[in-house]
Amino acid sequence: MKNAIIYSIGNELVEGLIVDTNSKFLSVHLKSLGYNVIRIETLPDVLDIIVRRISEGLSEADLLITTGGLGPTEDDLTREAISKVLNKSLVLNEEIANELIERALKYYNKAPESVKKQALVLEGAIVLDNPVGTAPGQLIKHNGKTIVILPGPPVEMIPVFESIKGELKTDDELYTRRIKTIGVPEAVLMDEHKDLLYSNPQITIATMASYERGVEVRLTGSVVLKEEIDGIVEQLTNLLGESVYALDDDSIEDVVYKLLKENNLTISFAESCTGGLLSARFVDIPGVSSVYKGGVVAYSNESKANILRVPKDIIEKHGAVSEECVSYMAKNAREIFDSEFSVSISGIAGPTGGTPQKPVGTVCFAFASKKGVKAFTYNLRGDREMIRKRSALIGFDIARRGIREWLRLEGNIKG
Amino acid sequence: MKNAIIYSIGNELVEGLIVDTNSKFLSVHLKSLGYNVIRIETLPDVLDIIVRRISEGLSEADLLITTGGLGPTEDDLTREAISKVLNKSLVLNEEIANELIERALKYYNKAPESVKKQALVLEGAIVLDNPVGTAPGQLIKHNGKTIVILPGPPVEMIPVFESIKGELKTDDELYTRRIKTIGVPEAVLMDEHKDLLYSNPQITIATMASYERGVEVRLTGSVVLKEEIDGIVEQLTNLLGESVYALDDDSIEDVVYKLLKENNLTISFAESCTGGLLSARFVDIPGVSSVYKGGVVAYSNESKANILRVPKDIIEKHGAVSEECVSYMAKNAREIFDSEFSVSISGIAGPTGGTPQKPVGTVCFAFASKKGVKAFTYNLRGDREMIRKRSALIGFDIARRGIREWLRLEGNIKG
Repeated sequence: MKNAIIYSIGNELVEGLIVDTNSKFLSVHLKSLGYNVIRIETLPDVLDIIVRRISEGLSEADLLITTGGLGPTEDDLTREAISKVLNKSLVLNEEIANELIERALKYYNKAPESVKKQALVLEGAIVLDNPVGTAPGQLIKHNGKTIVILPGPPVEMIPVFESIKGELKTDDELYTRRIKTIGVPEAVLMDEHKDLLYSNPQITIATMASYERGVEVRLTGSVVLKEEIDGIVEQLTNLLGESVYALDDDSIEDVVYKLLKENNLTISFAESCTGGLLSARFVDIPGVSSVYKGGVVAYSNESKANILRVPKDIIEKHGAVSEECVSYMAKNAREIFDSEFSVSISGIAGPTGGTPQKPVGTVCFAFASKKGVKAFTYNLRGDREMIRKRSALIGFDIARRGIREWLRLEGNIKG
Repeated sequence: MKNAIIYSIGNELVEGLIVDTNSKFLSVHLKSLGYNVIRIETLPDVLDIIVRRISEGLSEADLLITTGGLGPTEDDLTREAISKVLNKSLVLNEEIANELIERALKYYNKAPESVKKQALVLEGAIVLDNPVGTAPGQLIKHNGKTIVILPGPPVEMIPVFESIKGELKTDDELYTRRIKTIGVPEAVLMDEHKDLLYSNPQITIATMASYERGVEVRLTGSVVLKEEIDGIVEQLTNLLGESVYALDDDSIEDVVYKLLKENNLTISFAESCTGGLLSARFVDIPGVSSVYKGGVVAYSNESKANILRVPKDIIEKHGAVSEECVSYMAKNAREIFDSEFSVSISGIAGPTGGTPQKPVGTVCFAFASKKGVKAFTYNLRGDREMIRKRSALIGFDIARRGIREWLRLEGNIKG
């Protein structure tokens, strides 16, 4: 297997002003292309440090990828460092220089001399077009090693990397599938299906449990095992049934959106403890306005009574965190917003507000359709943030299950 | 100045399954303690790689900090690696072992033998109590160098690091202040106040502009310059006036929350394009229920009409994205939620929905109090996510300015 090292370059990284998300992105892709990432190094904008680290890396890895340090200022030293390491000169690419000057003139009345720095290309390097920003990437081969130089901003780095991904493929290319589940604890899921999951030792199984996405099972193996991996995914999906909410890239809100969109249906939300989280996550999907009528954040008892018309005696008798209260919230939100469905949430996210009967983490949910309302109570663990995030996940899951059941009853099998 | 290297250890990091946020946290603190972070290395769970990298680091840095690799499984190799590098044996700490066994017995009927691994301490190391998780941290001095071993999960790493921060201080300890602003472009702000900001070359000035937090000016210098830095912060704060929304750690929603809380006032929101973002950010603050009555996400025109009672002819004549529409939204949300104030937002976040008159990025805001309603229109740049995040920031800023003006008019100077 080929080895790779990733270098993230910039003072803003070693000073902790920003989080390095480029390396996470590159690691995932390098693994699937068949590389073994032996380390990631984050370096300051100091020429001799960059030169020393890349020289050392060149003796250990087959592929070196750098991100950052390609800007027009004095601080940007990646090109210079690699020029020193490989002992190759930097040549001004007139075409790129003219393009950069032309672009700069659109914004100022003169182009600063420094823009030309971004048009310097290593002798023998392939220029990688940067469709979003100014500095192009570069790819250079040297004594059987490959060095890829990428811009730092993720919006620029990602398209440049995608454009050369094909060239970086190895014979160890991997194939990965993901099964996303909710409702079955990680340990139980793995234990019940261990014979199927571990049937081929050449297929690696990894699980990830998160408050925002539930339990994800990841199967990875050589591309030659594609059919076998797909087969296991299909079998496991059938065995787990409704617990599988999506495969591969879809999120749970994507699934809810698609179920609604494909069947011309609409939804609304009535949130208390999640405070708009369900709504904010849903509205992240472009085009959601065709299925989403809106929501109410009923954070006070008065707003539950006044806007969502929950009868005051219901709140007095059962409390705002009760199946009775969320049932009214969902039923009335559905009417107020004139949507086909509605999901409501009310719970105690903490740190205060818990009682012996209803401790912190008690969260009630309801799903309303024209066929009626169903309510559920969960006891969630964790701090305020975890409880709220997990509640949003469960809220979407209740929508997904409710809509699918409704579609089955309606004889519509699209869901 | 002393040099430091940070090591983040774990396959989940080099495989890109999680983002390394520990290093960002540690970088910021090491800088302020007076260290020069010469690099950050992310390493896989491979013993000889860890041994080699830490041995090399020991010859270059005064302080080495590791995070991760302290769990009970075979994969967790940080302790073993450092034991090899320093040639110091690992000794079972009976007290910690007993504690771990006792804790494990609370959850299972027997304690796995592997928990004892977490009680192994390097000969001569100081044990750093881990109040949240199981594996304690360790601090060891060796030939004038300091090695700090921290657990990987951020919730465990942070308190363990905080507990020894004092011991890591150097003579180059730094003092940092932050001025957070909104409404003045970064370039203009820096240009107009350059004489004040750059009056002492020993004080470093950095700016950060973000869609979620506006423009932040950061002043850093030796602790001996504390008074001078505080003086510049005070002068700049006075010169910038209302544009400064907070100093140091406070976020804009914290400022809005404090203004309301200190004066016993309440607020509600009526959101369209931000889809609950304003509400979700506000509800992140524990205790916010005392000032936040709730909100409506009026994502469709019907919901603007039905729930927020925006007259249909207003929407027909001026559109849902208009100062007329947001004025009704804020005024009526204030009444419906019975809050002292209300903020409304309606805009075109894209990617579709723009027109020549109202292009993508047109966002209208209104602030309502018993004294009336004020509306504003902004033309924001960026993609859907940027426009929504920036709109939430402006929404909070409109609340902040509105509440402060209201307090001034009421003769209440607490704000």
